[in-house]
Amino acid sequence: MRIAIDVMGGDHAPEALVEGALAAAAEWPDTRLLLVGAEDKISPLLEGKAAANVEVVHAAEVIGPDEEPVRAIRRKKDASMAVAGRLVRDGEADAMISAGNTGALMTAGLLVVGRIAGIERPALAPIVPTVDGVGVLALDLGANMDARPEHLEQYARMGSLYREKVHGLKAPKVGLLNVGTEARKGNELTKQAYDLLEASPVAFIGNVEARDVMRRNCDVLVCDGFAGNIMLKAMEGTAGTIMGVLKQEFQRNWLTKLAAAVMMPGLRGLRQTMDYKEHGAAPLLGVNGLVMKSHGSSDAKAVKNAVRQARVALQGNLIETITSQISGK
Amino acid sequence: MRIAIDVMGGDHAPEALVEGALAAAAEWPDTRLLLVGAEDKISPLLEGKAAANVEVVHAAEVIGPDEEPVRAIRRKKDASMAVAGRLVRDGEADAMISAGNTGALMTAGLLVVGRIAGIERPALAPIVPTVDGVGVLALDLGANMDARPEHLEQYARMGSLYREKVHGLKAPKVGLLNVGTEARKGNELTKQAYDLLEASPVAFIGNVEARDVMRRNCDVLVCDGFAGNIMLKAMEGTAGTIMGVLKQEFQRNWLTKLAAAVMMPGLRGLRQTMDYKEHGAAPLLGVNGLVMKSHGSSDAKAVKNAVRQARVALQGNLIETITSQISGK
Repeated sequence: MRIAIDVMGGDHAPEALVEGALAAAAEWPDTRLLLVGAEDKISPLLEGKAAANVEVVHAAEVIGPDEEPVRAIRRKKDASMAVAGRLVRDGEADAMISAGNTGALMTAGLLVVGRIAGIERPALAPIVPTVDGVGVLALDLGANMDARPEHLEQYARMGSLYREKVHGLKAPKVGLLNVGTEARKGNELTKQAYDLLEASPVAFIGNVEARDVMRRNCDVLVCDGFAGNIMLKAMEGTAGTIMGVLKQEFQRNWLTKLAAAVMMPGLRGLRQTMDYKEHGAAPLLGVNGLVMKSHGSSDAKAVKNAVRQARVALQGNLIETITSQISGK
Repeated sequence: MRIAIDVMGGDHAPEALVEGALAAAAEWPDTRLLLVGAEDKISPLLEGKAAANVEVVHAAEVIGPDEEPVRAIRRKKDASMAVAGRLVRDGEADAMISAGNTGALMTAGLLVVGRIAGIERPALAPIVPTVDGVGVLALDLGANMDARPEHLEQYARMGSLYREKVHGLKAPKVGLLNVGTEARKGNELTKQAYDLLEASPVAFIGNVEARDVMRRNCDVLVCDGFAGNIMLKAMEGTAGTIMGVLKQEFQRNWLTKLAAAVMMPGLRGLRQTMDYKEHGAAPLLGVNGLVMKSHGSSDAKAVKNAVRQARVALQGNLIETITSQISGK
């Protein structure tokens, strides 16, 4: 198993990425880690820590977090992200992981790695936090802003396969994000997608509402990239704002500070539950190779976890299964 | 000033509606309150409380909360909501207020009261809670699931006029709900609406994100009914879930119960801030008369507040201003 890691992307690059890769290499000796990035930056971090299953693949350029994705991928052929994408495309790596510019990674997936034949649109599929800590796989969360009903049906099938192969769920329940739970609700897109999902082989449970996602109303949540992004950011913003107000209230006086100390253990759990960074890397499903997006603020532990997820997906032959079951090739 | 109140709609109908109307009648003797509903249900509630500016308008039928809106409005010509709508249409009332079935009220607005000439789609415009307690007027929050760019531009103008006339804001800042703040972000709808909004007479500040709405990133938030509904329900669901976990954590043992007692005053404020029911009735903008949706769980105080809002809107000639400035008639 060979996993390419773009060690130049993310808030803590390259240190946290290299450290995470080294930890993964130590834990899984059967896995070859390809560290993609500037050799002169990576080498010092490897000093005295050489491992037989770690290799540096030099890439001279880096794509910044604010660069326009399509232009960046087209122009910076030697960017670490583009080089990692080519390793996957050319069969020199089985998977790639990046904590860099999300838009650029989706573009690299589409333009460098390429779509699986028959998959119309790749979808980004992160885990949305739920109060029980389990999470809902939601797709698409931003790869495609304008989806058609057929895309949503393909998202449902790809998401179901991912949850089966990577999380071991049997017949994961698929919900369609909508403005009400009744069958005829929604806009033209969701009305048409509803009919396609009813005819789909997935375990479709009908329309689900954004307000119930945190209570885990399904295992796979299907939506267009625009609505999904609005939902996730509304959840993040609300959670962050409430946590901020709580923190302020706890700081008010010595009595509330005492209350804070009493409540801390319980609230730490809540904070972790709400933090979608805790839920691992998000796969870009529908591209012809395993592409995983790790959160921009990923530390070494998150990077190692992303490698763990990639390994499980590869062992389950995720990409081959999507290819044979959905594209019918 | 004559304001029709559908006293049969809402969780606490007719008692809370009648009580609220009576309170409004006492506070504003210049305003005539038309209580629309079943005479035999209303009369006992008025016994000994007769006021010169309160009048009962009999309506034999009621639209339930789960009825299909279009069918309900078409078939139940004598429903309290339909009768109130006709009072507005026929100029016998200047405004109507209902706490009943939201879909049915939007349908009554469209089919009974009718659109203002030149307004393509009416929009429901509630206040979304912000952490400072001021709120953001968001539209459309569910009247139209599939909006076109021109609709969004009209929403911006109607919402701006409402905030000027009813809330006294000068040049309210208009934001376009989107997946990022950069100009070229979003789906086809928001990209095209962006250009129209730049050319619009409103104070357009550009794209805004769902995660910042609670920090009041604008005064008027423009979105299609589907995305707006997803955003609001994601916010409600997240706030409700976190509050539920907090409550649970506070109940854990005697020490946490003590902490709860200490924190109560501060957290009560947070709870109120997050509760969009506290922010009054939502106007259905674009129909040819003032139609206000009060929350289903409205109590007498909320009903009286809705009358207060309606009075301010009528005094500011809101409908006439929308008609002259937007439809150009």
